[in-house]
Amino acid sequence: MPDHIFYQLFESESSTYTYIIADSVTKEAAIIDPVIEMIDRDLKLVSELGLKLKYVLDTHVHADHITAAGEIRNRTGAKSALSKDAHVECVDIALSDGQELFLGAKKITALATPGHTNSCMSFLFENKVFTGDALLIRGNGRTDFQQGSSEKLYDSIQQKLFTLPEDVCVYPAHDYKGQTASSIQMEKKFNPRLGEGRSKAEFIQTMSQLKLADPKKIHEALPANMACGKVPVFRP
Amino acid sequence: MPDHIFYQLFESESSTYTYIIADSVTKEAAIIDPVIEMIDRDLKLVSELGLKLKYVLDTHVHADHITAAGEIRNRTGAKSALSKDAHVECVDIALSDGQELFLGAKKITALATPGHTNSCMSFLFENKVFTGDALLIRGNGRTDFQQGSSEKLYDSIQQKLFTLPEDVCVYPAHDYKGQTASSIQMEKKFNPRLGEGRSKAEFIQTMSQLKLADPKKIHEALPANMACGKVPVFRP
Repeated sequence: MPDHIFYQLFESESSTYTYIIADSVTKEAAIIDPVIEMIDRDLKLVSELGLKLKYVLDTHVHADHITAAGEIRNRTGAKSALSKDAHVECVDIALSDGQELFLGAKKITALATPGHTNSCMSFLFENKVFTGDALLIRGNGRTDFQQGSSEKLYDSIQQKLFTLPEDVCVYPAHDYKGQTASSIQMEKKFNPRLGEGRSKAEFIQTMSQLKLADPKKIHEALPANMACGKVPVFRP
Repeated sequence: MPDHIFYQLFESESSTYTYIIADSVTKEAAIIDPVIEMIDRDLKLVSELGLKLKYVLDTHVHADHITAAGEIRNRTGAKSALSKDAHVECVDIALSDGQELFLGAKKITALATPGHTNSCMSFLFENKVFTGDALLIRGNGRTDFQQGSSEKLYDSIQQKLFTLPEDVCVYPAHDYKGQTASSIQMEKKFNPRLGEGRSKAEFIQTMSQLKLADPKKIHEALPANMACGKVPVFRP
């Protein structure tokens, strides 16, 4: 029996990956970046696997979908956690860089990887790192809103992620081309903007020229996610 | 270093999973169920991983997308393989039940699992089984065209797949709910049509009542896939 449990799940409207990780012995589990529309699918799997959901983690305050964190907390009693720099008051645990959470004896380490937003975190668990919208497969998150910073993102990826062991598997929050996983080694070699030989100056210039449209749901998702996924009711 | 390489890839129009598997030592590789539109993505990854593509395998003659098998063979020299019962004359290897192919010292075993079509095969490699459209995650392939048979599918799944070790991971050719993987144990427990306590009579009755529309691309995909993915040119 493997010593940990791992499931990857996909939500097709926002191309978001959600992850379930657990310790095989105690069955203590965490869910990372759950999407509100998929809560029944995800909690059904947690139940079928016989897991006890201890944490619901968001890598950041998402702009493209609404988190299921608050509702999962309501239904299961799991503690929600997010970077302290997000200043989301409703979370149970405001995470600091390097903070450790445990599933049985297995450790999740929160790594501050700002740049896509000012409060992005990656989560290291066993031989896997969940990189949110910081490091994507052969790509990276945009840096043009939510206090994004190309300079910070470059440093986060080069100094925090690319210094992990090369065989660590990379699991991002999104992919738009049907890729499901990568590794630190593969991204160091082949990431077109951040791989070998790519300078910070070059990266900053490339990012400044992208001129992307806002995510469709940004005006709905940001206020909801600042409230742990609770959709605000606007009264006339 | 793990002793084998495994990548899962997704094609969103037909919700098809393609898999790349390889032996870490010799770098000999196979690609399973590649989709013609994604050939550049897939061969780029093969190249980045430094793999030598030895086989291109189809689990069956697909009705919903066109295989990249023929074109991958043209570009790489890989041998194409498919069940002998498909009677596809252009394949290099017409596989029999139980036939073994090797990537280095690592074995791929072809398991005849008819029922979705008369010539479906699953491929067992290490702790993984690629089940095509026979066993899906909490589901199974339809049985109403291409000599499909609910009776045969029930037997294939119960006798060929559910007798594998319980910790074997299940990787299907499709999923429509964002699920990426399962296991023999989980499907034996939770598959709603084929799991514990589901009789063959019940299964046959359920399947007979589905009344599904034909796949959108069936009239294009079947003739193309009988020609290893070459789209026939109809002359006036």
